[in-house]
Amino acid sequence: MSDTKNDRLVHLVLDKGYVQEVDLLGNDSRAVEAARVSYQQGLKSVDRDRSLIDFLVENGHESPFEHIVFTFRIKAPLFVARQWFRHRIGSFNEISARYSEMSEEFYIPQTSRSQDAVNRQASVVEDAPEKDRLLREVVAEHSRQTYERYRELLSSGVARELARIVLPLNLYTLWYWTVNARSLMNFLSLRADEHAQWEIQQYALAVGAIFKERCPWTFTAYMKYKYAGRLLELLQRECD
Amino acid sequence: MSDTKNDRLVHLVLDKGYVQEVDLLGNDSRAVEAARVSYQQGLKSVDRDRSLIDFLVENGHESPFEHIVFTFRIKAPLFVARQWFRHRIGSFNEISARYSEMSEEFYIPQTSRSQDAVNRQASVVEDAPEKDRLLREVVAEHSRQTYERYRELLSSGVARELARIVLPLNLYTLWYWTVNARSLMNFLSLRADEHAQWEIQQYALAVGAIFKERCPWTFTAYMKYKYAGRLLELLQRECD
Amino acid sequence: MSDTKNDRLVHLVLDKGYVQEVDLLGNDSRAVEAARVSYQQGLKSVDRDRSLIDFLVENGHESPFEHIVFTFRIKAPLFVARQWFRHRIGSFNEISARYSEMSEEFYIPQTSRSQDAVNRQASVVEDAPEKDRLLREVVAEHSRQTYERYRELLSSGVARELARIVLPLNLYTLWYWTVNARSLMNFLSLRADEHAQWEIQQYALAVGAIFKERCPWTFTAYMKYKYAGRLLELLQRECD
Amino acid sequence: MSDTKNDRLVHLVLDKGYVQEVDLLGNDSRAVEAARVSYQQGLKSVDRDRSLIDFLVENGHESPFEHIVFTFRIKAPLFVARQWFRHRIGSFNEISARYSEMSEEFYIPQTSRSQDAVNRQASVVEDAPEKDRLLREVVAEHSRQTYERYRELLSSGVARELARIVLPLNLYTLWYWTVNARSLMNFLSLRADEHAQWEIQQYALAVGAIFKERCPWTFTAYMKYKYAGRLLELLQRECD
Repeated sequence: MSDTKNDRLVHLVLDKGYVQEVDLLGNDSRAVEAARVSYQQGLKSVDRDRSLIDFLVENGHESPFEHIVFTFRIKAPLFVARQWFRHRIGSFNEISARYSEMSEEFYIPQTSRSQDAVNRQASVVEDAPEKDRLLREVVAEHSRQTYERYRELLSSGVARELARIVLPLNLYTLWYWTVNARSLMNFLSLRADEHAQWEIQQYALAVGAIFKERCPWTFTAYMKYKYAGRLLELLQRECD
Repeated sequence: MSDTKNDRLVHLVLDKGYVQEVDLLGNDSRAVEAARVSYQQGLKSVDRDRSLIDFLVENGHESPFEHIVFTFRIKAPLFVARQWFRHRIGSFNEISARYSEMSEEFYIPQTSRSQDAVNRQASVVEDAPEKDRLLREVVAEHSRQTYERYRELLSSGVARELARIVLPLNLYTLWYWTVNARSLMNFLSLRADEHAQWEIQQYALAVGAIFKERCPWTFTAYMKYKYAGRLLELLQRECD
Repeated sequence: MSDTKNDRLVHLVLDKGYVQEVDLLGNDSRAVEAARVSYQQGLKSVDRDRSLIDFLVENGHESPFEHIVFTFRIKAPLFVARQWFRHRIGSFNEISARYSEMSEEFYIPQTSRSQDAVNRQASVVEDAPEKDRLLREVVAEHSRQTYERYRELLSSGVARELARIVLPLNLYTLWYWTVNARSLMNFLSLRADEHAQWEIQQYALAVGAIFKERCPWTFTAYMKYKYAGRLLELLQRECD
Repeated sequence: MSDTKNDRLVHLVLDKGYVQEVDLLGNDSRAVEAARVSYQQGLKSVDRDRSLIDFLVENGHESPFEHIVFTFRIKAPLFVARQWFRHRIGSFNEISARYSEMSEEFYIPQTSRSQDAVNRQASVVEDAPEKDRLLREVVAEHSRQTYERYRELLSSGVARELARIVLPLNLYTLWYWTVNARSLMNFLSLRADEHAQWEIQQYALAVGAIFKERCPWTFTAYMKYKYAGRLLELLQRECD
């Protein structure tokens, strides 16, 4: 699942997507340093620094974590991007279908999920191989036909910005995301959560894994005092 | 184009969309009042108030305009929504295709536009009725077939959140937008602009018309000192 | 403590300050309306609306509350203003000591508090009338002398922006604050809290009282599911 | 004025303050890289990269510059800090006078300025050595006496958070500031400007010098297409 290029972490997600770390400002120690400004003391022994991070997270003093900033490069389907871009504390630069012709890359779900009988927002996985196959075939065929239509419109001289309106929400898109650790933790709380759609959960797990790798103390404190879900627990177990 | 229900303004946009004013906090006078706090003086005669607004806009003192806040209800295609939601200073609540089955409402462009030969981002209108007819038919047929596929997936028990991934970017969506006048003016500068896509230009004109109606002094000052485009000039002429 | 002018609420705070409601966008029903967009249903019976607000707050769906926006006019000492302006989701216009000569209005504490022996940030109230009297006299005398010095500098032709640098943190200032209900609740969580300084707690109680009056359902849900302190409980009791 | 410790830039400002670079995420090339995502092309030759930055700044495409993020450590008087903290797009951690006893460090202006006769907000420098001396002495004496009073209150057992309310606006404070290059350029436009107070202009010049050093292409484009003042021109001349 995880690979490192030039010391940069990459996680493959879904059938064609990924979360790639581009760069990082600061780390656990930087948050400690920023918090310590409050009482004019520099860095202390490692043990007390880690305790300070625990203290900050437990008591909701989140501003020191804004001095840790990640830049990611993310490839994901449009319906995932739409959920992601709702997080306003962060910076985005996305491929434009007005400037560029979009590539034929679509997300094809491997497993079907049915509507949850109780929770109007949720879906449940079933053991229904025939239904899975049907879904895969319908979505794959639809994607292929739609892309053909898109190409035809372009060929007939329709502008890119207009031809692209036939493209579906399972089309892959690409963007840069710069986000501080405070906003990133909020993203994890909402998206690495059982109530989020399964697909964005997979992306949130990738973001969480990179965050854990780069800021192990902050991640552990976040898991202990703030995170209310269960999905990230697997990462946590690997961590200790 | 414009209608008033219960004193609330509505502008129809594109073939099935609209911008509807829901509510408003403050007005020109409120911005004056907030600016006057700076030198402990209350409201002055109308003439000097209007001059103060001119002075504020001309000199880039934009914070007093944050105390004017609009709530709109907007119906627009997904590709317009995606451009709109990039404006981070504002509040959004959108219909969820995870909670609700989406209605069969698609944007069908009436006129084709071809790719601009020089500006990679732009499109140009041509007098090509045959091509227009072709585009309308292709998009309409594609929308109809896609919606049928969406319905089939739902019927076969696929969860809403998964079935919707075949839906295209010309599907209509609906949202509430609360935005202050400073951020609204920034929206107009970017979207009521020749470089924006024609479709979102139409929405920006509707937003601009409501803004002009409710805050005529601020609108006029904005047009005079800040707005660099030409689209809003029509509204301006009506105004004086 | 509370008074209404032209149907607008005013709360006097400390010896010379206040929190005055200037205007309001939306209310409990508006949050319901915005949330209901998600599943294309309008307003339901009152009982179910109130339940929806409970559901939203309990489950951390806070975006619908961004469509409720308050404008306040606040008079408070500079050290309180400095804490207040750290809340970045909101709009501020403050009296400028560069434009205007500041009035001779200083906060004189009535009761002394000593440093907490355990919590480095906290203070504790004692029954020490002699010490209280000393503090009052020292602060009052210091304020008087400082203001005299400020006036002398102005009289000798020193620019306002330079003369004001001798003024102390207990000087009163004045500002407009426009804030949505989501950010307001976050303000209450941090400032109507035992860990906040006593003086800003008094302001937070005034803000909380106005919020309770205007959005009783949201306030009650906030108290039940989100607020972790104890100070606002008094308001709550009055409420039920 | 400028010094480098461990490759980190430091600029001394006023009599006891400074702007110190702590860390940096990205650079000119990162902005290019983020912008290039739009049309799926990687880094090109240096000449075309520099042209792209010019194009982005000239046309107001500012989002790519959000992926460049600086962390600074700043020591400045309280009245400068109050102006600085009004910039909401950025992260702050400041020394707390509730946690720590403040040091006896005050800004003593060297030259007096008188109120501008026309511009209500401005001040003008005069050749008035006697008045300069008077101002220095008054502010120095006032600072000394005030600090003594602060110490007395602390000695008599008054809590830090309460004793500090007598401290004046020329007291030095200290904070961490993390800010992206887009917001930093906006800071320069407002604070490296003739209308800003002279003291914060000096800080803005220091921030500008570090920005120029780290992002020379973006700085030059900003100076050419966006900056409307004159103060930064000196840095620019050094640059070319």
